Amino acid sequence: MQENLNDYLDNQKQLIEENLRNYLQHLSIPSQLKESMIYSLEAGGKRLRPILLFASCQAYGGNVSKTLSSAAALEMIHTYSLIHDDLPAMDDDDYRRGKPTNHKVFDEATAILAGDALLTYSFEIITNDPVLTDQQKVKLTGMMATVAGPRGMVGGQILDMEAEINPVSLEELEHIHALKTGELLQFAVFAGAYLSSATDEQLKALKDFAHYLGLIFQVQDDILDVVGDPDKIGKAIGSDELNQKSTYPKLLGIDGAIEQKQKYVNKAKEALKKADALDTTLNSLIDYFSHRDH
Amino acid sequence: MQENLNDYLDNQKQLIEENLRNYLQHLSIPSQLKESMIYSLEAGGKRLRPILLFASCQAYGGNVSKTLSSAAALEMIHTYSLIHDDLPAMDDDDYRRGKPTNHKVFDEATAILAGDALLTYSFEIITNDPVLTDQQKVKLTGMMATVAGPRGMVGGQILDMEAEINPVSLEELEHIHALKTGELLQFAVFAGAYLSSATDEQLKALKDFAHYLGLIFQVQDDILDVVGDPDKIGKAIGSDELNQKSTYPKLLGIDGAIEQKQKYVNKAKEALKKADALDTTLNSLIDYFSHRDH
Repeated sequence: MQENLNDYLDNQKQLIEENLRNYLQHLSIPSQLKESMIYSLEAGGKRLRPILLFASCQAYGGNVSKTLSSAAALEMIHTYSLIHDDLPAMDDDDYRRGKPTNHKVFDEATAILAGDALLTYSFEIITNDPVLTDQQKVKLTGMMATVAGPRGMVGGQILDMEAEINPVSLEELEHIHALKTGELLQFAVFAGAYLSSATDEQLKALKDFAHYLGLIFQVQDDILDVVGDPDKIGKAIGSDELNQKSTYPKLLGIDGAIEQKQKYVNKAKEALKKADALDTTLNSLIDYFSHRDH
Repeated sequence: MQENLNDYLDNQKQLIEENLRNYLQHLSIPSQLKESMIYSLEAGGKRLRPILLFASCQAYGGNVSKTLSSAAALEMIHTYSLIHDDLPAMDDDDYRRGKPTNHKVFDEATAILAGDALLTYSFEIITNDPVLTDQQKVKLTGMMATVAGPRGMVGGQILDMEAEINPVSLEELEHIHALKTGELLQFAVFAGAYLSSATDEQLKALKDFAHYLGLIFQVQDDILDVVGDPDKIGKAIGSDELNQKSTYPKLLGIDGAIEQKQKYVNKAKEALKKADALDTTLNSLIDYFSHRDH
């Protein structure tokens, strides 16, 4: 099973990366901007968001060809958020996944504009997709704007910054992660199932599934920063403590964090059962998110 | 006539400002983010883009109530571009329209995120507008993404930065302005006429009109930076020369620039005649753009 999941992840990763290249290579824009956008889009990463989107589509018998623009748009928005997050005025990171960050390779101005361009282009991609109906385009672009905007991811980033100054409760921590990480996962799970044949009731249960999956992702991130293998993670551990970040291990201790993760896993499986998708790759992805070592 | 146009501009300005407040005040988001977004949205400005959008709608007998979301979205995108443009890594401006820039009042991280939020929220506003059909929403969000993205405004900003290092020809200068300024004006003129009853042929002629209007706007901007009244402009003159910017007066001399502007005015009027709108406020706006003193 683990062997199969790894094959699956590799295949889907290849699919999204080919797809991203298609959207970028024919784009006739100033070369400096294009290079900067492509640099960050091709700087690796596990492509978990598009893979989750594909898996959600397949769970309800859908054809992933309908989801290609949504998956590319989602990965572009994720990439824009990383470029802006890494800027000197934000987290001031020189490296990501072992490679120099965008503003170190290009310059800050180009990095800001490459982020802006990826965000804006993601909406163009969906509205121009010939395989989608107008109704689908409106639903998808509207949801994408909501999950990525001030009520979603950007709102979460502001709260996350504030949490570095003022310690937060477990409830507040969950709220920050729900916005900062969870909202894009909500889009992934929703878009895949919506472009397949999921019912309204199944879509409703999938909201809970995506919510807990986001929390599992984040608690595991926090755990890896304490007990992970630096070689596998691609960066030194202990940076959260150094930066006085609010984390699960800080709030609950490392054992408490692992216990909390198990609670989220149980909740995610419960929601997946309600969504009639316990017997799909989405279930394997819960375990993958929970046990990943990088 | 001038008296009437000033009244018209004041009324439309009031309409767009009320409209912007409506979209922001009910938004339930972190307070720091909201304050930063509102600060720049309410920092004044002539609101030329939404006014142009309203005028374009009225020129073909349309009702502006259909254009309110497009006008607000357009002004938000314009505002986001100013916030990011003013950042230390970009133009590094401490003041705009006599007020401290966003990152001076808040901080750089908040300014970056407020820009990101305004850009993203603008798409949400159009897709959520109950008075538009799905077809109209797709057309408008798709065009907005194109004019604001890497093939439009953001592409123009990269070229503009490059032009500060390498001198450009008149043709290249026109291309930069067409992207950096003209594309958002294209959206304004198109959206208004499209949501009214303009024919495809009229829409086609309006493309030329918007193109030349953008160039008139820019050449007048350059002229004001040489011979304008600092009290009326709200900033010192001569900053373009100081920053070694490529401008019309630098390329053509001040008389040559004024002559060039007149050529654009003639072209804009010619296009407006083809669009059957020579007898509308759009024509007065050509003169206003051409003779404005701030």
